[in-house]
Amino acid sequence: MNNRNIYSGNFGIEKENIRVDNKGRISKLPHSKIFGENNPYITRDFSESQIEIITSAFDTIEKAFNELHNITHVVLNTLDNELLWPQSNPPIIEDEKEIEIANYEKETKRVYRNYLSNKYGKKKAIISGIHFNISFSDDYLLNLFNNQTSFNEINDFKNNLYLKITKYFLNEKWLFTELFSASPVFHESYVDKCIKKASLSKTNDYLSCELISLRNSECGYRNTESLYLDYSNIEEYNKSLKYYIDNKIIISESEIYSPIRIKKDALGNISYIELRFIDINPLYFNGVSLNDLKLIHMFFMYFSKLDDFYYSIDLQKESDQNNFLVNYFEKNMDIVNYEKEKLLLKGIKLLNNLKNFSSKIKGLPYNYEDIIDSAILRLKENDKSYYNIIKNEIDKSNYVDYHLEIANKHKNYAINNPLLQLGYEGLELSTKILLQSAIKLGYKYEILDREENFISLTDLNGKTEYIKQATKTSLDNYSSVLIMENKSITKKILRKNNIKVPNGYTITCKKEGIELFEAKLLPKNLVIKPNNTNFGLGITIFKEKYTKKDYLDALDFAFIHDKTVLIEEFIEGLEYRFIVIDGKVEGILHRKPANVLGNGKNTIKELIKIKNNHPYRGFNYTSPLEIIKTDEIVINFLKAQKLNIESIPKENELVYLRENSNISTGGDSISVTEYVDKSYFYKVIDAVNALNVKIAGVDVLIKDIKEQASDTNYAIIELNFNPAIHIHCYPLEGTKEDIGDKLILAIFK
Amino acid sequence: MNNRNIYSGNFGIEKENIRVDNKGRISKLPHSKIFGENNPYITRDFSESQIEIITSAFDTIEKAFNELHNITHVVLNTLDNELLWPQSNPPIIEDEKEIEIANYEKETKRVYRNYLSNKYGKKKAIISGIHFNISFSDDYLLNLFNNQTSFNEINDFKNNLYLKITKYFLNEKWLFTELFSASPVFHESYVDKCIKKASLSKTNDYLSCELISLRNSECGYRNTESLYLDYSNIEEYNKSLKYYIDNKIIISESEIYSPIRIKKDALGNISYIELRFIDINPLYFNGVSLNDLKLIHMFFMYFSKLDDFYYSIDLQKESDQNNFLVNYFEKNMDIVNYEKEKLLLKGIKLLNNLKNFSSKIKGLPYNYEDIIDSAILRLKENDKSYYNIIKNEIDKSNYVDYHLEIANKHKNYAINNPLLQLGYEGLELSTKILLQSAIKLGYKYEILDREENFISLTDLNGKTEYIKQATKTSLDNYSSVLIMENKSITKKILRKNNIKVPNGYTITCKKEGIELFEAKLLPKNLVIKPNNTNFGLGITIFKEKYTKKDYLDALDFAFIHDKTVLIEEFIEGLEYRFIVIDGKVEGILHRKPANVLGNGKNTIKELIKIKNNHPYRGFNYTSPLEIIKTDEIVINFLKAQKLNIESIPKENELVYLRENSNISTGGDSISVTEYVDKSYFYKVIDAVNALNVKIAGVDVLIKDIKEQASDTNYAIIELNFNPAIHIHCYPLEGTKEDIGDKLILAIFK
Repeated sequence: MNNRNIYSGNFGIEKENIRVDNKGRISKLPHSKIFGENNPYITRDFSESQIEIITSAFDTIEKAFNELHNITHVVLNTLDNELLWPQSNPPIIEDEKEIEIANYEKETKRVYRNYLSNKYGKKKAIISGIHFNISFSDDYLLNLFNNQTSFNEINDFKNNLYLKITKYFLNEKWLFTELFSASPVFHESYVDKCIKKASLSKTNDYLSCELISLRNSECGYRNTESLYLDYSNIEEYNKSLKYYIDNKIIISESEIYSPIRIKKDALGNISYIELRFIDINPLYFNGVSLNDLKLIHMFFMYFSKLDDFYYSIDLQKESDQNNFLVNYFEKNMDIVNYEKEKLLLKGIKLLNNLKNFSSKIKGLPYNYEDIIDSAILRLKENDKSYYNIIKNEIDKSNYVDYHLEIANKHKNYAINNPLLQLGYEGLELSTKILLQSAIKLGYKYEILDREENFISLTDLNGKTEYIKQATKTSLDNYSSVLIMENKSITKKILRKNNIKVPNGYTITCKKEGIELFEAKLLPKNLVIKPNNTNFGLGITIFKEKYTKKDYLDALDFAFIHDKTVLIEEFIEGLEYRFIVIDGKVEGILHRKPANVLGNGKNTIKELIKIKNNHPYRGFNYTSPLEIIKTDEIVINFLKAQKLNIESIPKENELVYLRENSNISTGGDSISVTEYVDKSYFYKVIDAVNALNVKIAGVDVLIKDIKEQASDTNYAIIELNFNPAIHIHCYPLEGTKEDIGDKLILAIFK
Repeated sequence: MNNRNIYSGNFGIEKENIRVDNKGRISKLPHSKIFGENNPYITRDFSESQIEIITSAFDTIEKAFNELHNITHVVLNTLDNELLWPQSNPPIIEDEKEIEIANYEKETKRVYRNYLSNKYGKKKAIISGIHFNISFSDDYLLNLFNNQTSFNEINDFKNNLYLKITKYFLNEKWLFTELFSASPVFHESYVDKCIKKASLSKTNDYLSCELISLRNSECGYRNTESLYLDYSNIEEYNKSLKYYIDNKIIISESEIYSPIRIKKDALGNISYIELRFIDINPLYFNGVSLNDLKLIHMFFMYFSKLDDFYYSIDLQKESDQNNFLVNYFEKNMDIVNYEKEKLLLKGIKLLNNLKNFSSKIKGLPYNYEDIIDSAILRLKENDKSYYNIIKNEIDKSNYVDYHLEIANKHKNYAINNPLLQLGYEGLELSTKILLQSAIKLGYKYEILDREENFISLTDLNGKTEYIKQATKTSLDNYSSVLIMENKSITKKILRKNNIKVPNGYTITCKKEGIELFEAKLLPKNLVIKPNNTNFGLGITIFKEKYTKKDYLDALDFAFIHDKTVLIEEFIEGLEYRFIVIDGKVEGILHRKPANVLGNGKNTIKELIKIKNNHPYRGFNYTSPLEIIKTDEIVINFLKAQKLNIESIPKENELVYLRENSNISTGGDSISVTEYVDKSYFYKVIDAVNALNVKIAGVDVLIKDIKEQASDTNYAIIELNFNPAIHIHCYPLEGTKEDIGDKLILAIFK
């Protein structure tokens, strides 16, 4: 057996959440058009307001779990004034009419939902949950197949294997109900019949003494009558299924609302198992814990090794009975307690067997002991069960407020940590943004080389694009990129195309400077500066006339600070970064050096601390903005202003903490897109067109962004071929631009 | 005055050459279609077989001169079985009918040439020469203008300045005839009337005692009658010109066959002067020496500083008379000798004045003393004159043979030094090839950054493309290039597209190798090799079965030689480089390690010396192939074969001198394009299409190039995004591919 693959397989997760408003009422807004009609990650389930999140299939549970997190994160950041209801049981539904059936373009999808709506009622149909899709890797299957003699055909073997596992899960479904239930309380606006069955809690919410999962109960989304199927083999299974369909008890296989469902491929062979018993758990951002998914996977492997058995209708009924014992409205508590005690002991034994089994799997990368022990504890100590923890928490406030608080917490977490994805570790912010946009817009992605930030995106038609560092794409031709890399060629071409660039020279000795002067090759307005400036030292600016002596003094002054001196045409103004995508300016940003704004009360030190609390500020380029560090440069820069970190700036006094405006040293990013005169847009577009560039960050020096561009009030400094995009997406101030979305749409245009 | 610009100006050169066959007869082949109808560098003049080479205008003479060299070089390499006649006087023309009037698409061009043909006769019309176009830089003009008071308008000033210079040149035209004449001898098939005037030389060629330039004589391409123009100012000039046109003596200004012609811009102002007195000098590859052009430039500057004068008709006639003195058929030699002596003394004085003037020009980068002294010498010692040197040389053989020999020498020089251009120093071979193709196909070029090999090409419609290192172009998208840079992503994508690539692993310790073995992840045919191999040491190949012990021994063996070991699927065969341009395989090359082929006589040392004589072999990547060096590696490699450099290999015994097949270490390049089975073409095209690549060098391992590609007999090793092109253009053996042409045509498609 190849140990490398024992824990790999194919894992996918689906999760439904109802969109609600900030009062906990089901949202009346349509499914966001941004996600598109055929987004493979984000779709609708039964209801228009029921978002379904679907991960790709991954070879490890971790990856699927991370993607579930990331898709949820994207959804939360995309929804405007809505929350995701973190509970399987519905939010407030004042009238069943509020539940609009998912408005799919495809008529068949709408017809099917209408059928379900009529048969089960809309309130039941919007009960949400988590489905965990799981199958073995080919290597694992082949290994099992090679070690048996009952089957000659791998597909026969596989079908029977998955049927066997299904039977074990069904047979012990009470255990999974007990472990995964998290929907014990429901709102008074739920189905009348169920409300009647339940009792009113002290917080005026509804629950039933021993009900732990409304969803998995007879008041959940169940078939109208119990379905008993023949699991002996795939043919018998299909036959028994056909009976229910022929007798119009269900319309198709997909109407089996069993906690475990087998899934077939196009040839009718079982390709994976869908586990459907997991309630949305409000205790977790993902609605489920990673460890619980690993527990299921271990059971899945364990069951595959157990002997087959005949799952008679009697046994199936007994399974149902056991399930009722742990999750039923009306129970004879005396019998319940006695029988449940027996079941729990059986469950603990089963878990211990699982632990024993897991210990023998070489190289299993799960902390299986902790995972199983935690499950055993939930059986042993009833108040440690999810459903009881949730019940107790609701008791402290009430059903709606409790879940609203969690929904808000999740939403704020996602918004305040816009770039905190799971599994994207080590990727640049720009690439993270692109992956978020890929999910949002429904493009399949693959991370081809993490260190290089090289990804591929594939659209619904199967067209694949390869993208490095978010902005190195097939949109740009190689030659244009090489031009941008060469500043002097860039300037030459821009100048040839009548685009204003500052003229300038780089000199390494005074003599060269004198030659330029004598050759009358210098511009009128001049800035003379050391190539590398610190604290602005060594810079001289001549705005009008200057004598040769002035000029020579300025050269001497500059050469004190560096061996290389720049002599450039002086253009007054601030620098702005224009981001251009496919010939369109999509955002304009001004970067301000690290600074604090006085309030007449706090010291600079305190003001820095307050400023650093902004959720966008973090360390080491993992956040849109960096924490302002009080280093020696800051101390010296304050000193030069006759200030120190204990000084208290006056109200509205802006104190700069360093000279350079880099975001990486705590600078502020201010989006100014809507304030800049349109004439600069045209100049920037002329520049990128001159170089035949599609994606670029264009740095422009502008005297006054509200004044029209002329030959003297602006200059294009440079074109950058790999511009950062996160600064435009998450500026400290001003409009956020969806650069990721725009990049993808341009690439796939 | 700005000294920086004193010697800069605008310089252009035009040169005509008759295409001849290898017998010295005017070629009957049409102008090569490769050059196109509107090539700005290479066109036709009067006759279809008269190639005209036209340089761009440059700011230094050197650059124009270099381009003249380079265009000539391209022409010689493009003409198949033809030579360029290196003489102003025509080659053998058995019948005037052989002279086909240039077959231009434009009718007006043909009509004008028919008119000239009827008026002057075709034999005269095909007399060839060099025109040197010259004007001052704007800075220089402005400086002169600012230092005078006679003219208020710069254009008036400029017109008068150029008219003054023209007058000086015309007034002293005898001197320039004397210095630049190189067509003293002509063939018996020339115009009867002229033959009659001349005398027969002892080699049976025709010459006249004191004729030094047939071209500049009354038997050259002269106006039917003397034209005397008024050079007082541009208006008077135009008026006097109009007289000749109105009286139908000439058809237009361009019919003035004066040794100096003024050239006007669209507004009628003089923009430059065309000096037309330079004969094609067979002593120089370019038909003229660089120093002589510099001499003219110095006169041009000198004349600009002299006082203006009225150039009366009498003075003009005197100028003609002086010219007749140095270049006339029928002369009274007594008078001639006396008068000529006076003239020569005057000429020497003028040259000395010029020397004095030149010495005062600060920063003039000409070795003016040598240049002027050499001219003085040509006046002082008659046998040092070009025309006498040429006469004497012809006397040693005859008119046709002498010029044929030179024509062949020029042609062989160009062919054997295909990459020896002037002024392209420091450029990579691939870029040189592209520039050659640009000239050949008629694209204007600019070298934007010599160190980066960054050039621009512009087509006749003004469309500009930017190209770095010949193959980094706008044809390729940036993303595809980045994929090629990443070998593992490349392999991933190729594999996904069902393209055969060798599977492999890179390991840095034996443990990793063992894991691969145990995980059964190794291919059947295996090569285990150190990452860097020397002399093929440390390599083990398993072509069929191997035991674990074999495998581990092979790992140990490889790790002796390097810390990094490659474990790869073994594919038997040789490596071939396919060059792909715009989705088409344009050449296939096999590189053979440095080797010699025995003849049973010479030692290896001698065989290397013989092999190194190949004109393609040179040093330091300036030639298509490198000189084979007998270094320590070669000595050791021979030793391993029990050979040394004094060994004498048997006839047809191939002795390899090193293991690696790099051209840079003396390897051979063998073009095999036509021998490779077409199936490999398709595989390579599939590969480049998978990556959406347009230009690539694809390395393919092929067992047998004549056998169809299958899944086991080939593999694509890698795709290179900046392939060398010179190896395909100038292989040691096999077909030369015009990759430069194909690149340009693809880029401008």
